[in-house]
Amino acid sequence: MYPYQAPLKDMQFLLENVFDAPTTWQQLPAMAETVDMDTALAILDESAKISRDLLQPLNRNGDEQGVVHSGNDIITPDGFKEAYSQFAEGGWVGLCGEADFGGMGMPKMLGVLVDEMGYSTCNSFTLYNSLTAGAALCINAHATDELKQTYLPNLYSGQWAGAMDMTEPHAGSDLRGIRSKAEPLEDGSYSITGNKIFITGGDHDLAENVIHLVLAKLPDSNGISLFLVPKIRVNADGSLGEANGVTVGSIEHKMGLKASATCVMNYDNAVGYLIGRPARGLVCMFTMMNYERLAIGLQGLGNGQAAYQMASDYAKERLQGVAAAGSPTGATSDPIIVHGDVRRMLLTIRALTEAGRALSVYTGKQLDLAKYASDDVQAKAVRYVGLLTPVSKAFLTDRGLDTTVMGQQVFGGHGYIRETGIEQFVRDTRIAQIYEGTNGIQAIDFLGRKVTGDNVATLTEFVADVNAGLAELTQANADHKATVSNVFAELLTTANYINDNKHEQPALVNSCAVDFLDAFGYALYGYFWLLMADKASGHEDTTFAAQKQYVADFYMDKLLSKSQYHLSQVNQGDKSIMAMPAEMF
Amino acid sequence: MYPYQAPLKDMQFLLENVFDAPTTWQQLPAMAETVDMDTALAILDESAKISRDLLQPLNRNGDEQGVVHSGNDIITPDGFKEAYSQFAEGGWVGLCGEADFGGMGMPKMLGVLVDEMGYSTCNSFTLYNSLTAGAALCINAHATDELKQTYLPNLYSGQWAGAMDMTEPHAGSDLRGIRSKAEPLEDGSYSITGNKIFITGGDHDLAENVIHLVLAKLPDSNGISLFLVPKIRVNADGSLGEANGVTVGSIEHKMGLKASATCVMNYDNAVGYLIGRPARGLVCMFTMMNYERLAIGLQGLGNGQAAYQMASDYAKERLQGVAAAGSPTGATSDPIIVHGDVRRMLLTIRALTEAGRALSVYTGKQLDLAKYASDDVQAKAVRYVGLLTPVSKAFLTDRGLDTTVMGQQVFGGHGYIRETGIEQFVRDTRIAQIYEGTNGIQAIDFLGRKVTGDNVATLTEFVADVNAGLAELTQANADHKATVSNVFAELLTTANYINDNKHEQPALVNSCAVDFLDAFGYALYGYFWLLMADKASGHEDTTFAAQKQYVADFYMDKLLSKSQYHLSQVNQGDKSIMAMPAEMF
Repeated sequence: MYPYQAPLKDMQFLLENVFDAPTTWQQLPAMAETVDMDTALAILDESAKISRDLLQPLNRNGDEQGVVHSGNDIITPDGFKEAYSQFAEGGWVGLCGEADFGGMGMPKMLGVLVDEMGYSTCNSFTLYNSLTAGAALCINAHATDELKQTYLPNLYSGQWAGAMDMTEPHAGSDLRGIRSKAEPLEDGSYSITGNKIFITGGDHDLAENVIHLVLAKLPDSNGISLFLVPKIRVNADGSLGEANGVTVGSIEHKMGLKASATCVMNYDNAVGYLIGRPARGLVCMFTMMNYERLAIGLQGLGNGQAAYQMASDYAKERLQGVAAAGSPTGATSDPIIVHGDVRRMLLTIRALTEAGRALSVYTGKQLDLAKYASDDVQAKAVRYVGLLTPVSKAFLTDRGLDTTVMGQQVFGGHGYIRETGIEQFVRDTRIAQIYEGTNGIQAIDFLGRKVTGDNVATLTEFVADVNAGLAELTQANADHKATVSNVFAELLTTANYINDNKHEQPALVNSCAVDFLDAFGYALYGYFWLLMADKASGHEDTTFAAQKQYVADFYMDKLLSKSQYHLSQVNQGDKSIMAMPAEMF
Repeated sequence: MYPYQAPLKDMQFLLENVFDAPTTWQQLPAMAETVDMDTALAILDESAKISRDLLQPLNRNGDEQGVVHSGNDIITPDGFKEAYSQFAEGGWVGLCGEADFGGMGMPKMLGVLVDEMGYSTCNSFTLYNSLTAGAALCINAHATDELKQTYLPNLYSGQWAGAMDMTEPHAGSDLRGIRSKAEPLEDGSYSITGNKIFITGGDHDLAENVIHLVLAKLPDSNGISLFLVPKIRVNADGSLGEANGVTVGSIEHKMGLKASATCVMNYDNAVGYLIGRPARGLVCMFTMMNYERLAIGLQGLGNGQAAYQMASDYAKERLQGVAAAGSPTGATSDPIIVHGDVRRMLLTIRALTEAGRALSVYTGKQLDLAKYASDDVQAKAVRYVGLLTPVSKAFLTDRGLDTTVMGQQVFGGHGYIRETGIEQFVRDTRIAQIYEGTNGIQAIDFLGRKVTGDNVATLTEFVADVNAGLAELTQANADHKATVSNVFAELLTTANYINDNKHEQPALVNSCAVDFLDAFGYALYGYFWLLMADKASGHEDTTFAAQKQYVADFYMDKLLSKSQYHLSQVNQGDKSIMAMPAEMF
């Protein structure tokens, strides 16, 4: 059922036929010289090989062996260090990094697909480089040129790793309460003291230094500032100096992601450097978060893809029962893929995963336009990035759990056995609904800030684009187009209902946010399915075209109406949610 | 957040006020002398203590330490053996066992509540005695008096344990393919040879003997027969004799339930005794299965209850953010229970768990009536047991995963850490959707056999009872009553659509079964919520009455319409599920 086969044809299709990457890249000055479809396909091909041959073999043992905290060392499982070294040498950590500082400068539209492959094969491994790329992005966006020169090349090369240090025991979703302190030093640097928890990749043996981005408060300020705090101080000539008062208190023992080091970090007068302006640390962090949140969404997506491959292969091999209409081959036992319920599960996984991939490439495109385009195109992309980021994070990871659990179910009892491998994906993917802002927080960001924050203006604009897109589809069933359009119309009506009542009913947004985000996600996937089926209809590979049409029909038949179900929940408002006194729970 | 507090008030309410156990018991000759409410409450009270003080302390270490296969021994984690001994001495294994053979003869209506408490505190431990009780039940129903005399008293006392040996590597959901063989011996016993997998409690150190109920084939027969195969042979005087060619090949390493021994069993000319008639083994097994499937449903229920307690306690303690309308106490941070999204999750868990408890007690009542009543009452109960058993198993365990995952989400990052404890419930409960017949198999049994097998007669009868029940509710909102009644009417319409088309579209049942079962489950919970709110309205504890009304309102507002969503899926039929050729998956 394995080794992993990257869905390269689907990836190419999305880039080339659905979201027109070649034209997009040609029109962006920063991209035109950097990337074309040939380059992109070569990168995807190489990434597929590395994921299959280098990452996937680490996955099972990584889970069994886990990370070990021994003395002052955090030791990753056998093979991680060598693999990371090879991965970094290939330039993968700096794939989308700034070319001026040693990155490859590739577009996010492409990067999302590479990340997906990493998560399909080894979640823990992929997190290490994802965090490093995220830290580099933040430094590139907000740090001084001096800090960039010192840190970015070594981060892009994978020689050093990155970590984001936000959470404290009493400050998780609500960062206002953080207590870590930063005292100014005479040379312009700061002395950082405090504790952080849940720091992914807080320390490990994959890189010779770990560069922490730490949120802390300056004296006499309630604002939160961001500091670059290296584990080992860097000398003026760029060489490594002395240790920096950054130590690991302990590592967490978790449900999954066991090969990823989740650290309690202690800072004891560690030297740090301010990134961005004082008291504006959260703003700096949020730049990175748009990327990181999408990256975490990709974890859910990649895990769903892995689940599909494992489960569909198993369903085509495992003999059990005969087809309801009689065995197609006259056998006494058929492969379980003859059974409607097994097909229902596989089609659900596939429909959610392929539409999820479309969402990730589309969001990646908006990130590229937001970064590299200009004027109106850029401004609109910035709005869409804001709108889609919480959806990508929450919807992709919620469906990540749904689809891995469904894939596990296809295996019956074998799915519960560790050796089969799929239960690890269920455990590993579960955290993606929680970290980088829980999916509840994402939904509140979406409905409270992105949808109603501008009185539904961006959502209205987006829905107009969807309707324009639907109008351009030439092959799609007219009823299907009307259905999707109607669902979006209902969505707008509901969004306006929330917007009109949000002041009078202050708990409305918080109470209805998750259902609203789900309603949007299922509606959007309906649009993407019609789009994909339409674009595939002329595909030279007729099997590929037929597959898209079959799955699109299934989605329209069976899954789209979840959007309406969730809208009906939103329309019930917050009354029955807020009524019961807290002490009665 | 723990120790476990058994929901005794709710349990008493269901027995006494909702499902009128006192009258039921008085009217059944076998029960009238055995049990009354005082006895039942004393038993529940004692069970609550044992679950909290004896079982719960085993849970975490059981997960960490797991079962060990050392030489020929299967060693349970520290403390299991002593606890089991104490548990068995209390008579708990034989709680619902036949009084003539040393059981306590208690009704299942009560037994389900005791089982729920076990699963709320230690899944692995509770499985051992659940399997033993199940094996005893099957022996009691189908074995000869001699076998009953020899085996039942020691099973009820917990001195010996039981196991059900069905699955083989190539025969799981489809048992036709089993290859284990039984050769008749001269003395009337049989020689059993073969291999089984996934045998829960196949061997362990909690009891001095393990009594296996093994499915095997007689020579020249394709029919499957059932055999009692002791691990250690029993002498004529009842003492233990020599070993019996029953060995453990290995134990499985699983996602959860790590303290439960899941064994590969080998039989090498082991002596066995026929239970029931030759080639009728599956019929005998199915008697037990109605109980076992309900028992597995209770695992989902108990786990949801545990999740609720842990998550609601956490939500009342954890300070993070302030209420949307401003802190009710003027604090800078409120307990997260002020947030609508957290309340939504807690109310969902609670609504599903309390209605699930109603389902389990109601199904337990039907099992009691089927066993102890006579004539029409008994015949009807037999029909309802058939109808409700697959629902209890699948719907309770699917909601078990939903609710434990939701409880885990309330904890944020802490929910992913093993030490917090809730992630273990997620892992432990996952198997309940798979074993004892996957939930897909349950749904096909429900829709294919129980609903359409008699051309919707039993379901129609059941819906008439629901409507009669609704008519008797004096306190419930008329709109709510009409809504629930309408959902059941839609359900019947859909059932008839399936029934009318099942021959022409042979894949229809298999393709739509899971959605149909879910639709029924959510509709039934709507009825139970109106029933509970109505019965609670006069409760002496006004807080209790108010809680029921609040949660009922939430259920009607937010969850009932899931029933209609699932029905809409069923009404889309099987076309888009069956269309795509297998090789395109």
